[in-house]
Amino acid sequence: MDLYIGLDLGGSFLKYALGDDRGTLLTDGVRQSRAQSAAEDIFNNIFLAVEKLLEAALIHNGAVKGIGIGSPGVIDAERGTLLGQSPNLPHWADIEIAPTIERKFGVPAFADNDANIMTIAEMELGAGKGFRNAICLTVGTGIGGGLFIDGKLFRGSEYAGSELGHIVIESDGLPCPCGGRGCLEQYASAPAILRLYGEALAEEGRRVDGDLDVKDIFEKLTTGDNAAKKAIDRASEYLGVGIASLVNALNPEVIIIGGGVSNAGSVYIEKVAKIAHERAMANASKNLQVRKAEMGNQAGVIGALLYARKRIEQRETLN
Amino acid sequence: MDLYIGLDLGGSFLKYALGDDRGTLLTDGVRQSRAQSAAEDIFNNIFLAVEKLLEAALIHNGAVKGIGIGSPGVIDAERGTLLGQSPNLPHWADIEIAPTIERKFGVPAFADNDANIMTIAEMELGAGKGFRNAICLTVGTGIGGGLFIDGKLFRGSEYAGSELGHIVIESDGLPCPCGGRGCLEQYASAPAILRLYGEALAEEGRRVDGDLDVKDIFEKLTTGDNAAKKAIDRASEYLGVGIASLVNALNPEVIIIGGGVSNAGSVYIEKVAKIAHERAMANASKNLQVRKAEMGNQAGVIGALLYARKRIEQRETLN
Repeated sequence: MDLYIGLDLGGSFLKYALGDDRGTLLTDGVRQSRAQSAAEDIFNNIFLAVEKLLEAALIHNGAVKGIGIGSPGVIDAERGTLLGQSPNLPHWADIEIAPTIERKFGVPAFADNDANIMTIAEMELGAGKGFRNAICLTVGTGIGGGLFIDGKLFRGSEYAGSELGHIVIESDGLPCPCGGRGCLEQYASAPAILRLYGEALAEEGRRVDGDLDVKDIFEKLTTGDNAAKKAIDRASEYLGVGIASLVNALNPEVIIIGGGVSNAGSVYIEKVAKIAHERAMANASKNLQVRKAEMGNQAGVIGALLYARKRIEQRETLN
Repeated sequence: MDLYIGLDLGGSFLKYALGDDRGTLLTDGVRQSRAQSAAEDIFNNIFLAVEKLLEAALIHNGAVKGIGIGSPGVIDAERGTLLGQSPNLPHWADIEIAPTIERKFGVPAFADNDANIMTIAEMELGAGKGFRNAICLTVGTGIGGGLFIDGKLFRGSEYAGSELGHIVIESDGLPCPCGGRGCLEQYASAPAILRLYGEALAEEGRRVDGDLDVKDIFEKLTTGDNAAKKAIDRASEYLGVGIASLVNALNPEVIIIGGGVSNAGSVYIEKVAKIAHERAMANASKNLQVRKAEMGNQAGVIGALLYARKRIEQRETLN
């Protein structure tokens, strides 16, 4: 049996999984990602995960044909190397991600940007199945983006394409760590919802009570908390406007919304979809679907192993 | 000699030209476009232009192999038909543009959106030569957009793609005839520059004196008119921000700026380029070029005849 390893390196966790060529997982696990450590430590941590999975493959009488890994940052997908600095991993900069893993295990390895990898998972097995033109937004601590054009993942001319959290929706808006101002991420990410909630409370002369996360705010919405309603209305308005902007520019068939914030439930997605339809041009949005991502927490590892399979298939086709 | 006809239907003029397979023009002309007339009148006007060019082809001992036409609106490029209403031409809606021309003359005809056609001209012969990933913006009465991805014109899932004048740069901004709000077109087109000039004058307690067009405002800039400077600074800031947003989303190699406003000269393009670089993410913009369109007033007819040639070549390859 042909097996593949999928790795999903994030700011908090390293997720890893072993699966077959259809993305069905045989075993999976999670480790701390050691995001603050030196690159060597991050690699050693990855190696431990891969070793575990290679052992598991033996038990399943399978051969691991490829390893895929998603990482934050701009990644030269052809060579599997990180270009420049990765956000959230301070020592993860200009790293030969895939080549290092490939040398260590003698198994072909492939790396790509984490949002791209998640988009691959959604397009092959999730909410994007059957579509050829799609925009995937992962709304969490930041807003990541993936773009499928004519059935192919779009990467831009230097692998820096589809930073869709950094489209500008307020020309003179809030500064963004990306160096710009007024980026969508500053208005619709999880931290943005928390900020908007604080602002809405302040408008009512109230203050934030204790440590909150976005989940708490969505819960408050169900108990009729007016400030929570205001914050979520505003954030969904911003996200809907950002989507309308992308729809006018790219006329996709489907927008897929994933990430932590999308778990808030269907009310949120419906709000966002309504605004996107109101604000986008009729011609570009008349058949537009706005869907919740379906692959959940395992999108990263499943996308990574599907990506490894796809790259190996391409090699075989070319030879 | 193989010849092609290029037609460029606009809100004011119908431009027409006869050229060879490299886009070199043998003869060309302009007529009123009869934009307010019934579709039949617009077609009769087009037919007169084509007849003239067919006669010219005989004189050049050439055979007209194809006719290309650019028109405002969303066009099903496969069939050459206009989908829905064209802006500026009230009776030009749901029209079989290319099929009607083809039936009349027995020559293969092809239609596409005018901004797409201009993009084709720039990519083959103008500022986009040698690039595979490019964004073309035509800044005039409106802002049109064309997108080349991986060497191919991008049209979106329903031919409504790349309405780049309608990316949103002010989430709660000015209403736009497109049905949205805060579109780039409302802040950086020729009418927007006029509005910004009026606002800048008002800030100084002055008023617009007589009928002005954008050219006048760029002229006032050279005479040290402070309000003109403010208006153009603001419009170029907006355009630069819009470009930064597109660069973050699409990581193109080059941005090509055409249309009436781009004729204002290199100072304007340089201002816009500076802001785009400041506001875009470093990874996505480090090698970005911002260029003035090179094809000038004939971009439409040249693009249209190159498009006809390309479509006919594709047919011949497939058969």
